[in-house]
Amino acid sequence: METLSENACFGGVQGVYSHASNSCKCDMTFGLFLPQEAQDGPVPVLWYLSGLTCTHENAMVKTGAQNWAAEQGIALVFPDTSPRGDDVADDDEYDLGKGAGFYVNATEKPWAPHYGMWDYVAEELPALLAENFAIDADRQSITGHSMGGHGALTLAMNLPGRYRSVSGFAPICNPTGADWGRKQLSAYLGTDETKWARHDASLMMRKTGFDGPVLIDVGTDDQFIDLLRPETLATAITERRQQATMRMQPGYDHSYFFVSTFMEDHVTFHAEALWT
Amino acid sequence: METLSENACFGGVQGVYSHASNSCKCDMTFGLFLPQEAQDGPVPVLWYLSGLTCTHENAMVKTGAQNWAAEQGIALVFPDTSPRGDDVADDDEYDLGKGAGFYVNATEKPWAPHYGMWDYVAEELPALLAENFAIDADRQSITGHSMGGHGALTLAMNLPGRYRSVSGFAPICNPTGADWGRKQLSAYLGTDETKWARHDASLMMRKTGFDGPVLIDVGTDDQFIDLLRPETLATAITERRQQATMRMQPGYDHSYFFVSTFMEDHVTFHAEALWT
Repeated sequence: METLSENACFGGVQGVYSHASNSCKCDMTFGLFLPQEAQDGPVPVLWYLSGLTCTHENAMVKTGAQNWAAEQGIALVFPDTSPRGDDVADDDEYDLGKGAGFYVNATEKPWAPHYGMWDYVAEELPALLAENFAIDADRQSITGHSMGGHGALTLAMNLPGRYRSVSGFAPICNPTGADWGRKQLSAYLGTDETKWARHDASLMMRKTGFDGPVLIDVGTDDQFIDLLRPETLATAITERRQQATMRMQPGYDHSYFFVSTFMEDHVTFHAEALWT
Repeated sequence: METLSENACFGGVQGVYSHASNSCKCDMTFGLFLPQEAQDGPVPVLWYLSGLTCTHENAMVKTGAQNWAAEQGIALVFPDTSPRGDDVADDDEYDLGKGAGFYVNATEKPWAPHYGMWDYVAEELPALLAENFAIDADRQSITGHSMGGHGALTLAMNLPGRYRSVSGFAPICNPTGADWGRKQLSAYLGTDETKWARHDASLMMRKTGFDGPVLIDVGTDDQFIDLLRPETLATAITERRQQATMRMQPGYDHSYFFVSTFMEDHVTFHAEALWT
């Protein structure tokens, strides 16, 4: 593992590290914020998964999350959104290939060799963090924005016991039913739709739900709301009687201005679950 | 004036606008955050001047300032750092030309035709804001980072009565005595150093001071500290008995992680001056 940068930030350290990834067969870069308390021992951790076109960097510099994480004494992890490098398959469109890994393990050509983002976020990076940093692996929660909200919700419901709480900012809620999803799941997983089901938050909510609190924020003026389909997740949540808060935020769109506005709420929500 | 974007943000609106500038003889773009209170009438305004290489956008997306401005009910203005466009003179180095206007009115070739950043920030943009937005021109304060801290301090001391408070994040404190300054002041203003004096915060502090509170933060690990020369400003402040707080922040560097860490303090500091 190589340290690319470490900056003092809200009393803690915002670091950026790279390492050879076995899941993605390439070098991967991630951001990690450690609060001051990590100097004295392991701290809880909140995962933040980013959306289409993002790297590890966008949320790390745009959401102001470190402020609230420092206040709560929890770490933040910002993984990248896809494998990277010249020998990694890509697509001309912004929503497939690099920057668009969709948090699945690709089984289809040309994606299969590198696009192992599920294993990367679910297994490889947690192990790397536990080994190298003062992170309490028993206290993890997860959030994300857009495609990253999809990743957070599907990881949380597929890995019971792993995360104490899950939230999403304008998450892709029903990828098997929208263009943000059908295109990518076909490409990465093939046309057998039974293999898609575990990667659909609404279907997973219907099938298994989540053993803990759920928080979802969506802006009423989100320009991509038809692709997100929050209504299918709302239906699944209410039909299951899942413990959850879903908020439609008046006037907000899909941007980081929306994410940063509600970041304090999300970090506080997760901190409550992580510290009890 | 053209609206490039408007996003809901912390209950207010983060806008980006462009207009034909008379001071810079080109189209200029700026960011403006208006808190919710601006819907009911004019609000105080805090100017944020950015540093070398920045546009209007960096601080607007990286510092989290809108959160605190919303809490305090004040507007934020993020001007660009230089004129822009294909017919604007530039330099191969990052610290001269575009992105490096240094908040002066250039008198020398090839800079004079467009580099009128002093007039732009001191006169043209305030007039445009007063005309088009719910801004209370009697309640203005100013801050900035690095080259922008230099701009904030020199504007504040050259325009008595304009700003109620001034602050700086790692400001260039003594440009007539360092490579971040001598090079640019020679290029823009010529070699007669008497013309440089009003653009040097330490010299202005010695000569006139500021009729209001001053707040300066500098990181002890700032990688550019030899170019900033905070010691000359500290000497001038203490010799003048200027009302001021200068803080050396242990472990912090020159980055936006440093700026965002102390943004709440600065906005709160200015809000106290703006609301009394």
